[in-house]
Amino acid sequence: MSASRRSTLADLGEDRVVSALTRRLVLGEDVRVGAGDDCAVIGRARDARWQLLKTDVVVEGVHFLPTDDPRRIGWKALCRALSDIAAMGGVPAHALITLAAPPSTAFDRLQGIYTGLRKAARKFGVSIVGGETSRSPGPLFLNIALTGWVERTRCTLRSGGKAGDVLYVTGRLGGSRAGKHLDFTPRLAEARWLVMHFRPSAMMDLSDGLAADLPRLATASRCGHQIVPEFLPRTAGCTIEQALSDGEDFELLFTLAPRDAVQLERAWKKAFPRLPLTRIGELIQQSAISNQQSPPRGYDHFAKR
Amino acid sequence: MSASRRSTLADLGEDRVVSALTRRLVLGEDVRVGAGDDCAVIGRARDARWQLLKTDVVVEGVHFLPTDDPRRIGWKALCRALSDIAAMGGVPAHALITLAAPPSTAFDRLQGIYTGLRKAARKFGVSIVGGETSRSPGPLFLNIALTGWVERTRCTLRSGGKAGDVLYVTGRLGGSRAGKHLDFTPRLAEARWLVMHFRPSAMMDLSDGLAADLPRLATASRCGHQIVPEFLPRTAGCTIEQALSDGEDFELLFTLAPRDAVQLERAWKKAFPRLPLTRIGELIQQSAISNQQSPPRGYDHFAKR
Repeated sequence: MSASRRSTLADLGEDRVVSALTRRLVLGEDVRVGAGDDCAVIGRARDARWQLLKTDVVVEGVHFLPTDDPRRIGWKALCRALSDIAAMGGVPAHALITLAAPPSTAFDRLQGIYTGLRKAARKFGVSIVGGETSRSPGPLFLNIALTGWVERTRCTLRSGGKAGDVLYVTGRLGGSRAGKHLDFTPRLAEARWLVMHFRPSAMMDLSDGLAADLPRLATASRCGHQIVPEFLPRTAGCTIEQALSDGEDFELLFTLAPRDAVQLERAWKKAFPRLPLTRIGELIQQSAISNQQSPPRGYDHFAKR
Repeated sequence: MSASRRSTLADLGEDRVVSALTRRLVLGEDVRVGAGDDCAVIGRARDARWQLLKTDVVVEGVHFLPTDDPRRIGWKALCRALSDIAAMGGVPAHALITLAAPPSTAFDRLQGIYTGLRKAARKFGVSIVGGETSRSPGPLFLNIALTGWVERTRCTLRSGGKAGDVLYVTGRLGGSRAGKHLDFTPRLAEARWLVMHFRPSAMMDLSDGLAADLPRLATASRCGHQIVPEFLPRTAGCTIEQALSDGEDFELLFTLAPRDAVQLERAWKKAFPRLPLTRIGELIQQSAISNQQSPPRGYDHFAKR
């Protein structure tokens, strides 16, 4: 016990750290979903609409480089959080920006970041309603707090998947490190269309790579999972390994009852002819060992490098 | 122009940086108050309740030291944001925590921070509903995103003060650096009592010191201000200069029509016998030079040190 109390974040890894920290939180009656899904969900059981709450951060040297175009940094920061609103089937509403930067930062760099934030806000209908600035003695740190909403009957969690449900991903996986991570489009339109026309049983966005994120969805749904790696839609030039593990794809991963699969695939092609939708496998009965057989190999924030 | 574009944050100072960044934000119809007050205020003009949104950050080496008790760091982080909900006359509801920490951080330090966060959440009725963790290549960052609500008719902005209104502060000012900044109590109960029983015309919390914050309230109210520095309620052992400039008091600064002043002071003493309420001056007609006569000397995040 005393040894474990001296453990570092690197020793434990991101999932165990988060799970330990959020275990004993006391939640109000209006909290439908707390920590552990893409967004928190707030509302009374019979409200027509529920509120979605999300916070997300990008840190210099981790999520972007000092040399990256500031406008792309701003775009990425807001779009990461928007991707989580999409993952619930929701509509984004209001954002608050926290910016911690060294006093020596050039003002036009911050203006560039705000240009990117404003561009994403305009495109996806978000109002930036305030924020906070602080000095940073280290890297630049840009946190987004975002609200949104979703109809109660359309709200889609990670936990609703059932054995036999088909697993889908949108777009192509891998290659984020080549630059895509600064320019991606959050799948708000696609997720919204999906929840209004179909009933995905579970959904999340892929931020840490399919190898880390799929086990999270499967575990939340108390299922195992089975995918055919060769089926993974890959960004041109990417290996299967990269498609599984690069992270920062910001595509949707969702599950659907098999009886609706053919109809979905047909409708999707008409609605989004330019964005592939790929059946990559299925959820299966959870056996004692199924999810342990494929340990997550995606991005772990605290892993030793 | 080209020279100003190369300016650093230190050259411009916090207020000018924030004002320039937030100038061109496009806001939805449901945004009652955007950037510039203690919280953003969201709702339709006739809604009975409005939502309050706030984000706030504490950074290692700026707002706390590596050697500070982690539980006090967590307490402070949440209570800073709670103080802004208080400043609107509101009730806090849901919090999201962003934590960026080096992988070498001891896990029990994070547990300590969460112990402090949970303690403040329990005491003030907040549900911690999620968050985000990230690696930090530098200091530890702890960002709080907080929602709350306030009745439309009780919502109190910085901008409602009128010339002749009396200026009040709660508690005692100065001395935060001696440790108070880690243990303060956000004035939620007092602010709530105040807006339910009286009609403060303007209110804010004191985070950067009266010398920096009072001009912000006066300017938002299009007034000048006049205080008697000798009247300032000071923490034992503090000079007037410290009471004006230490910052991180997290007391309430508010204004009230002079006709209600006597009644307020009498009622306050009964409701909060142990917390002083002090009349420190008044708002006055704005003259061309009044607010420039006393330049802010409070805490500026980007000031050269």
